[in-house]
Parts: sequence; structure tokens; C-alpha cells
Amino acid sequence: MRFLPDNLEIEVGEAETILEVASRAGITLRGACGGDGTCGRCLVVLREGAVRDRGGDIVAEPGAVVRACHSFPVGDPVIEVPETSRLREHQVLAEEEEAGILQAGAETTTGPADPLLRRVRVSLAPPEPGETPDDWGRLQAELARVTGMAVRADVDVLRELPAALREKNWAVTVDLGLDEAGSGAGIVMVQAGHARVPVYGVAVDLGTTTVVVELVDLEKGRTVGALGTYNRQAAYGDDVISRIIYAGERSGGRRQLQEAVVDTVNTLIDDLRRRHRIDREAIRLAVCAGNPTMSHLFLGVDPAFIRLEPYAPAANFWPPCRAGELGLVIHPRAPVHVLPGVASYLGGDVTGGVTASGCGAGGEIVLYVDVGTNGEMVLGDGDWLVGCSCSAGPAFEGSGISCGMRATDGAIEWLGVTPGGFEVICRTIGGERPVGICGSGLIAALAGLVRAGVVDRAGRFAAELETPRLRRTESETEFVLAWARETGHGKDVVLTGADIQNLLRAKAAVYAGIRSMLAAVGLEQDQIVRILIAGGFGRFLPLRDAVAIGMLPDVPLERYAYVGNASLRGARAALLSGRRLAGIGETARKITYLELGDETRFMDEFMSAMFIPHTDLDLFPSVQGEWAQ
Amino acid sequence: MRFLPDNLEIEVGEAETILEVASRAGITLRGACGGDGTCGRCLVVLREGAVRDRGGDIVAEPGAVVRACHSFPVGDPVIEVPETSRLREHQVLAEEEEAGILQAGAETTTGPADPLLRRVRVSLAPPEPGETPDDWGRLQAELARVTGMAVRADVDVLRELPAALREKNWAVTVDLGLDEAGSGAGIVMVQAGHARVPVYGVAVDLGTTTVVVELVDLEKGRTVGALGTYNRQAAYGDDVISRIIYAGERSGGRRQLQEAVVDTVNTLIDDLRRRHRIDREAIRLAVCAGNPTMSHLFLGVDPAFIRLEPYAPAANFWPPCRAGELGLVIHPRAPVHVLPGVASYLGGDVTGGVTASGCGAGGEIVLYVDVGTNGEMVLGDGDWLVGCSCSAGPAFEGSGISCGMRATDGAIEWLGVTPGGFEVICRTIGGERPVGICGSGLIAALAGLVRAGVVDRAGRFAAELETPRLRRTESETEFVLAWARETGHGKDVVLTGADIQNLLRAKAAVYAGIRSMLAAVGLEQDQIVRILIAGGFGRFLPLRDAVAIGMLPDVPLERYAYVGNASLRGARAALLSGRRLAGIGETARKITYLELGDETRFMDEFMSAMFIPHTDLDLFPSVQGEWAQ
Repeated sequence: MRFLPDNLEIEVGEAETILEVASRAGITLRGACGGDGTCGRCLVVLREGAVRDRGGDIVAEPGAVVRACHSFPVGDPVIEVPETSRLREHQVLAEEEEAGILQAGAETTTGPADPLLRRVRVSLAPPEPGETPDDWGRLQAELARVTGMAVRADVDVLRELPAALREKNWAVTVDLGLDEAGSGAGIVMVQAGHARVPVYGVAVDLGTTTVVVELVDLEKGRTVGALGTYNRQAAYGDDVISRIIYAGERSGGRRQLQEAVVDTVNTLIDDLRRRHRIDREAIRLAVCAGNPTMSHLFLGVDPAFIRLEPYAPAANFWPPCRAGELGLVIHPRAPVHVLPGVASYLGGDVTGGVTASGCGAGGEIVLYVDVGTNGEMVLGDGDWLVGCSCSAGPAFEGSGISCGMRATDGAIEWLGVTPGGFEVICRTIGGERPVGICGSGLIAALAGLVRAGVVDRAGRFAAELETPRLRRTESETEFVLAWARETGHGKDVVLTGADIQNLLRAKAAVYAGIRSMLAAVGLEQDQIVRILIAGGFGRFLPLRDAVAIGMLPDVPLERYAYVGNASLRGARAALLSGRRLAGIGETARKITYLELGDETRFMDEFMSAMFIPHTDLDLFPSVQGEWAQ
Repeated sequence: MRFLPDNLEIEVGEAETILEVASRAGITLRGACGGDGTCGRCLVVLREGAVRDRGGDIVAEPGAVVRACHSFPVGDPVIEVPETSRLREHQVLAEEEEAGILQAGAETTTGPADPLLRRVRVSLAPPEPGETPDDWGRLQAELARVTGMAVRADVDVLRELPAALREKNWAVTVDLGLDEAGSGAGIVMVQAGHARVPVYGVAVDLGTTTVVVELVDLEKGRTVGALGTYNRQAAYGDDVISRIIYAGERSGGRRQLQEAVVDTVNTLIDDLRRRHRIDREAIRLAVCAGNPTMSHLFLGVDPAFIRLEPYAPAANFWPPCRAGELGLVIHPRAPVHVLPGVASYLGGDVTGGVTASGCGAGGEIVLYVDVGTNGEMVLGDGDWLVGCSCSAGPAFEGSGISCGMRATDGAIEWLGVTPGGFEVICRTIGGERPVGICGSGLIAALAGLVRAGVVDRAGRFAAELETPRLRRTESETEFVLAWARETGHGKDVVLTGADIQNLLRAKAAVYAGIRSMLAAVGLEQDQIVRILIAGGFGRFLPLRDAVAIGMLPDVPLERYAYVGNASLRGARAALLSGRRLAGIGETARKITYLELGDETRFMDEFMSAMFIPHTDLDLFPSVQGEWAQ
């Protein structure tokens, strides 16, 4: 079949949906329902030929609009994929932009002190007759002498060893992948001579929405570059739950999802390699941080039981494996470490982020918050840590909101409402005409509407207001944020009563999670000395508004700090330090996980937090004066 | 192209010789020269079409006889492979025959005490909410409790774990592959429920000429069956040196040789599996014993430096690998251990054999002798061990002898010469008409001819004898062992003067090796309390004759014992016991290797041993009276 306007021809497999064929062709379609056919984001246009739907009905009218996830090619149809159905691949994180955050902390001029991949240059004496001069025995003894470690080699290393040793007169460079405990190591590669070219590693942030790869010179401890893009798994569902369902219910679904995320990582690695002219085999280590579902899928492990009581992941601590086993386009023997998690909804992205941002290392009580589809939070002073995950729903990602969208060009990322005339001042990403609203914009919108008296503390529209922006449709009341004449697509951008309820549930879940943790350890929110906001969403979070709507604790704003992509920094720290990797393991073991679903307290807290900011205004002293009630 | 009379059609690859195409088609041709085109054993007949020789000349006459190793197909020729050019695949070792020796020693009624593969049946409690109920963490803790070991699992095991745990209500059977030291273990397989079907392992004797596989029930410690056949590598050369050359000089040669030996092992495993109705995946462990060249080639490691000064093998101690990496048709995750060697010409076949036959375990001074193409010998009392390897040449394998052949049907395996009339009484393998003479027959022939006065103590024919059996050809004097009318092929079977010199060199090398070891530790041969003869050749060795020609020490014959295929028993012992595997490693480390090539003493001893039995008759007191001089 053929795709337009790309004009890509591709063979069609048996029982493959157009969505799947497109994915193989490198065309990533949008999708939020995991292929259930309910979200209507993957609509495509039939130009020639025919398709068949799941019920068996044939569609053959040129111009017909069909759901790619529910249509199968009949013969060799020609399909047009409109721009609106494509998941746009843009650089989520350009190296220039984030370089400051990426490189903070770990870099030294002398290189890492206890690297996870250690390069050793040795020169053996030529072998003497007598004794037992086997190549591997002599190299092993020398490596033990130099490193103090028991060094292992797999047979495939031994296959290359005799030639490598003799090529440069018994001088070789050995790259050792260290065990986490540091007591042993396995050879990743032996090369002839004393190598001067660098050896690299990649730190990978396996986000549900976004994947970021950072390329690091392992000897210098220096970041060479970083790139991010959308996770190609998005074609199979927006959130982890829909992907778990897809992996379990579709034949081959688990493999499809693994390939999608590995492809995403490989694309970024290839891009970085090309930019910096680095050989694939020069990258000899990888450390990946992801939530538990992403970690399972990346490793090809069925995540089915993550969503079934009692929510048992297949593993919290993952054995290192080899890049070649996963299909990563780096040295096939490169060790791949996946950071350890705590429970089904608290993974290596959080343990890595918590450890990398030094949460609790100073003995102060710190709260770590990473809000995406799930709100993942950790509280503690280092001696103890509690953690939880609350399902905030996809509202902060722009999903489940009538005009919601991700934080890409044209998204309203902040707005203000003038109190008198109910005028709206918008700021959009990229400065373009608005086409929707993303998470940070939603928080600002809710705060602004409450301040202006458009929305009351229970989240209801004030019915009696005299403004054309507030209007009642057949089923809903809605507030117009931007008129059709002002927008990029010629349609109104609105916020409905249902949107506000979704947003309330999301913010209430986060705050109730924080309250539940505080209660579990008998602390008050004022005792929190620092609040660290992590993750891509946190970066643009209008903090004052988030506190105002009761999503985050009302403590002096200077206690808040944005720590950037802490998961990636966790992976990077481990890439450069075996002790850091072990430290992330200690964090994972130390965190006591609070299963909120089972707690009556959480439900009570949740209900109280469904008000703006809260039923108990004493919890939000600085906010009390703000509301015009 | 097509092969007759098999009528096999096969695609021809680029620049592939007919020998190589035939090998891929499963037709194993004979060959002694490693494809050099000098031995003429792989002759085939062109029936249709044409072939091209290495020089580019085209042969197109139907009926033309060409060397398969030096001919390339032109188009799609039809080639007939005569029976005489085929390496006949027969059962070298039938299970019934050898069962007594195979099963001796290690079997117990309670099963192995410290198995190398340990089966554990556990039942986990269903997971509780709270805590961190990850599947692998809980299983790992239970396995640590039950076994006292740190148990590892690779990601591919974790992929199967969640389903296996839940299928039979958290009861699983775990097969653990233990580390040699016994402190840790890796999971080979997890299956649902408490398995009642057995788990198996294979012990493999990787001989240069013959490969034997023994299938063992690992829980009961019982041998299920054993089979042997010719090593398919024989098509690429008779001895280790010609195979090393083939592996190094032919492009893809190393891979061809690896595939040939792995195919040989797989054929035997498949045969055993079919006979005993066992699934491929039920075999979950393998231990292999081979000489250093065979071990290198089996693992795909270049053995080139084995034959170059200072004779450094790539490794003496091999890391375990997985069956899937080598292409063995057992469980792909089954650990494969290759027994450790001592030096380039003293390998795991000897360390395994020495350990399994209890050499020196009683504190007595024992000599272990395994004679094939190389004579490999170990001497010691257990506290100390010395070992050496002497190149006996291929005479004992029937090679390099004008009418020599392997020990198969029609080979003269023993003979006597009447002193007066010079009549010869032959015994052949299989009772068939003689077609040649094998190693044991050669030893008997030499002893018989000296006793009868046909050959003098220097190995020369007595020129003045009146018998038609002794005749002078253009270039040689030869003795007719069997007349054309008595033989299976209608040609005389003779022993030439050159044959006798080859045989003398072989026996002198063995005896000089033994003398060198004795000298190195300051012992006399009479202090040897036991002499253990190992290997297939040893089984039919005419001991009295071997002593009479001065190949083995003249000590009371009751000190000699035949220990059978001790290498295979070494592999089997390790298969059932981690301590035994460790013990073989200790043996390998304990043996002081004597490099005979560098020793003046060895050359002196060798020259003295070129007489029958020796220049110093005092060394052979029991033999002195035998000779009719």
C-alpha cells in the first residue's frame, strides 16, 4: 500500500491495521485510546482502493475518512495521512537549551572517580614458554593486579582476544563493565593498543510521552549532546494503562511496544552519533530510567500485572542485560542498566530523580514531586523516605480536556483573566495563534477564572455573569478562552464545566497524595523545608497558580525549586558512577511505598481537595485573601 | 547441483567447493589433508554438467574423477559420491556396550549431593498489597532462603516469570545453573507447578576423531543413554594441526569447523532425544571435554596460536556460555561448561579424565596415559602432578601408514607371526576380510615381527630371510601381512620399512615423554604404582606387545588398568557435581606442564627409544628374553 503525501510504499502484513503499517513505515499517528477506536485521533483519508473495518465491512469511496486503528488494507490502497493525525516529532529537548541543567553536578576535570564503565590500558609481557601462558589467564591476572577486581570475559570476548593482544605487541585497552557492587567486572571490549579515542555511554529517560537520550564521554565525564523526541509507543495509547492493555490484548502487542520504544531510542542515538561523528561501537554503556510500565516494555517484559490487584510488577530490580539483546544500536555487548523501582507505579525514573537531586541528603525534610499523567511523590529526610503515586489522570498532559493538547506550538501555556471585563490574555508556545491549551495553561486558567469570579470554589461557573465568553450549549456551560477569529484553526478554544471537574480531580489527587504521606509520618506541610518539582511539565508550571488552586502546599515560594529532568540526571549519574547506581538502589529499598488506593484517608483527603483551594482554608493562608467571594 | 546416489539437490553458494556444498547437504566426505588436495580421499565422479578446478580449468567429461576439495561447480552439475569417499557414520559407542563403564562411580540412589544444575520446587504465598510485592524480588528471597545462595535471573527469564508464577497458584519449579564455586546460581528455567518430568544434562567428549554424547537424568544421577559418531570436522583434516591450519587459512574456516562439530553433537543429541522421547528444552546443562584445539573450535575461538611458539592457547579456563550462543539443540539458556586445560596440547579431556579416574587421589604414584594422535600423559601422587603431550604422529590412528586405517570393520586389530614359517594369524574388527591395519594391529605386528626375527631391534627388515612375504619393491622393502586373495579389496595388505619407522617414532615419543616426566620429578619407572590407560585406542591396546616394543614401561602387567573413556566420565562427573567441576579446575591448576619440544633430555630419550624396546635393555627386564637374536 502507499501513504500520501509521503508517497511511501510498503508491503502489508497479514491482519495488520493501517495504524500498524504506518508505524512500520515510520509514520507515527496520534492515538489516545490504545487502538480501541474511541478517540478518533488517527483518522486517515482513503484516496484509492479499499479498506475493511473490524466488522468486515468494505469501504471503497475515495475521500472516505476512516480510523487507521480499525481499518485493514484490502489489496493495495492509497491512504492520505493528514497533518492533524500525525504525532509531530520535534526536539523536546535541544542540547543547547538544557545544557546547563544536564551538565550540572557530576562533571569533574579528572573524570569520574568510580566509573560504571572503566577503561584500563595494560601492556602484557610477551608470553614465555613453560608455565601456562594462555592469553586470557595472563590478561585476567594483570587486570586483577591493576583493578583489584575479579574480571570476567564471555566467550565472544575471548574470540577477539588473541588477535587484539598480538596486533599492537601485547598492549590493549580494556573496557570493563562494573558490577553494581563494584567487586567484579565483565569485559565489554578489548581493543589493540592504548586507545586514545573516547568511549561513550548513553543515559536514557524513558518517558511515557517523551524519550530523551544524553550522550556522555565516559572517561571525561562530559556530556557531548542530548536529544529528545516523542515516544513512538504513543501510537498505541497515551498513558501507561492503555499501553498495558494493548500489550496484553493484541497478539504481538508486547513486541510492537518494545520495538516502538527501542526504535525511538535508536533514532535519537543515531542522530547524536551523526552529529558528533561517533561509531556505533564506541558507545559501550547505557543506563535507562523509566516508570515501571516503561521499564517492563523496554525490556520486553509483560506489564499486565501492574494494573491488576495487588499491582505486582515482574521486578523492581532489573538485571543488567546487553544492548544486543534489546536491539539498541550501540556496542552489542554494552551493558544496559535499568534503574530500580519501588512498586508498580513508582519506578526508576523517580528513584533516579530523587537520588540525583539529593533529596534528603542534607537531613532536611524534602518533598519531591514529578507530575505527569501520574503524580509521583517522595517525602523524607534521607534516613527515611515514603513515596506514593496518584493517578492524576491525563489532564495535565492536555488529554481528557475538550481543547486540551500537549505542550507544543500553539498551546496556551499561560493566561490571565481581567477581573472586570473578563478579558483573557494568552501566552502560547512558539508565540503562535492558539489552537488549544496545555497543562500549565489549564492551571493558570483555573486560577485566573476563580480570581475573576467566573468559577466558584466548588469549580462551578457563576451562572449570572454578564459576558459573552460564558455561554451555555445544549449539554454544557463553557468559557471561551480564545475566539475563533484569534485562533490558529478558526475554532473557539474553550474550557467547559467538565474540563474543570477533570482538572479538579487531577489537582486534588496530587494534593491528597502529599497530605497522605504527611499523615503517614505524622508531619505538617510547614515542616517541609524544600519542595523539588521535577519533569518536563514542572518546567513551565505556574507555581503561584498551582498553589492557588490547591494543587501544591502553601509554603513560602522560595522553598520550591525546579530540578529539571531529574530522571535523566539520575541515569547520567549512574552512567558515571557505580556508587551512584548503588545509591539509587539504596533509595529504592529505602522508600516505603504508600498504596493510596487502599487508604480511606486518601479518599477523605481527595474529597476535601476537590474544592479550590481546599475545604480547610487554614491550609492555604496565603491564598485566602486572593479570592473575590 | 545434485548429489548421487542420494539424489539430493542443493543451492550452490559463491566460491564454494564441492566438498563444502556436500558438507552442507549432510554428506561428509573423507579427507586427511585439510583441503590441500594432496590426500585424494575425497574423490567424486562427475556425471552431468561441469566443474572448474582451482586453476580455472573446466572439466566436463562425464565419468571424470575429481577432488571435491579442489573443484567448484559450474552451473548445476550432477556429482556421484562413491561409498569409498564417504566418512561412514557408525555408532562408535553403543549405549549397551559401554553402559558398565559409563555408569560406574557417580550414581547414587538419592541423586547427586551437590549438583551443578539444581532443581528447586517452591510455593510462594500469593502477593500481599503494601510492601513491595514484585514477582522477582519475592522469588529471589525464597530461593535465597531455600538454597542459601544469591540467585540471578536474566531478563529473558523475567519475561516468562509473571505467567509461570500465576499459572499454578504461585507454585513453580526452578532449575538453577550453579556457579563453579557454588556461591551463586543463575536461573536456567522457571516452569509453573512442581514438575515431575525429569531434567537432563549432556556430557560431551569432543574427540578429534570421535564425538560421544551421554544423556543423564540430573536429578537421579542416572545415565539414560550414550551415543558416539565420527567428528564431522574430519572432512577438513585428520588431526588438530591440519584443522588449525584450515580454520586460519580459509575464509569462514573457523565457522565451518565450529558448525561441523556442533552439528555432530546435535546429531547425537537428537538421536538420543528421539530414542528416549525427550523434549529439546528438557536438556538444561552441558559439560564438554576436549583437547585444547577442539575446545577452541567448539567455542568458535581461533586456535591459530596453539601451533605457533610459544604455543599460547586463547584460554585454559573457559567461561560458561549458553547453549543458544553455540547453536546446541538443547534449552537455549542451558549453561555449557567446557572443562579447563593446562596448556596448548593438554586440555580438558585430560584434566577431566585424570580427575575422574582418581589419578593420585590415593596418594600413590600414578601414570595416566591417553594415546591418540598426541600422547597425553600425567604423572603424580595427587599432591603434585606433572603432565606432557608428545606428538606421536597419526600412526596409532592408522594414518601415515601405507595400509593404515581407523579401527573400523575390516581393520586388522591384532596379529601373530609364527616363528618358523612366518605365517600370519590376523584378527579383524567385525571378523571381516582384512582391508587394512589399525593402531592396535600395528603394535601387535611390530612385536610379532621382531619376535619372529623378521625385524631387528633397530626396526630394519632382516634381509636374508627366506619367505615370499618379505619382498623388495622399487623403493621399499615390505612384509605382506595378508595376501590379495585373503583381503576384502583384493589387494595385499603390507607393512613397509617406512611404516615401521613411523611406528617407531610414535612409540618412542610416548616412552620418551614418560621418561622425561619421571626424570623431571626424580623417580624411576618402577616407583609407578598404577598405570591408567585411557581413551578409545587404549581399549584394544595389546598391552604385552606395547611393553615389548618399548612404548610403555616394563612394570608388572597387573599395575596396568584400562579406564575407558575417562574424558567423558570427567564431563559426566562435573555434570552431576559442582565440586567435581571445581576439582577438575584444581587438577588443571596443579599440573605442571612439561614442554617437551624445548627439552634436550626429551630428544635424548627419544633417540634411545627408537630401538626395540630401547637402547637400555635394563629398562625392559621382562622383555630381554623374548627376542630371537
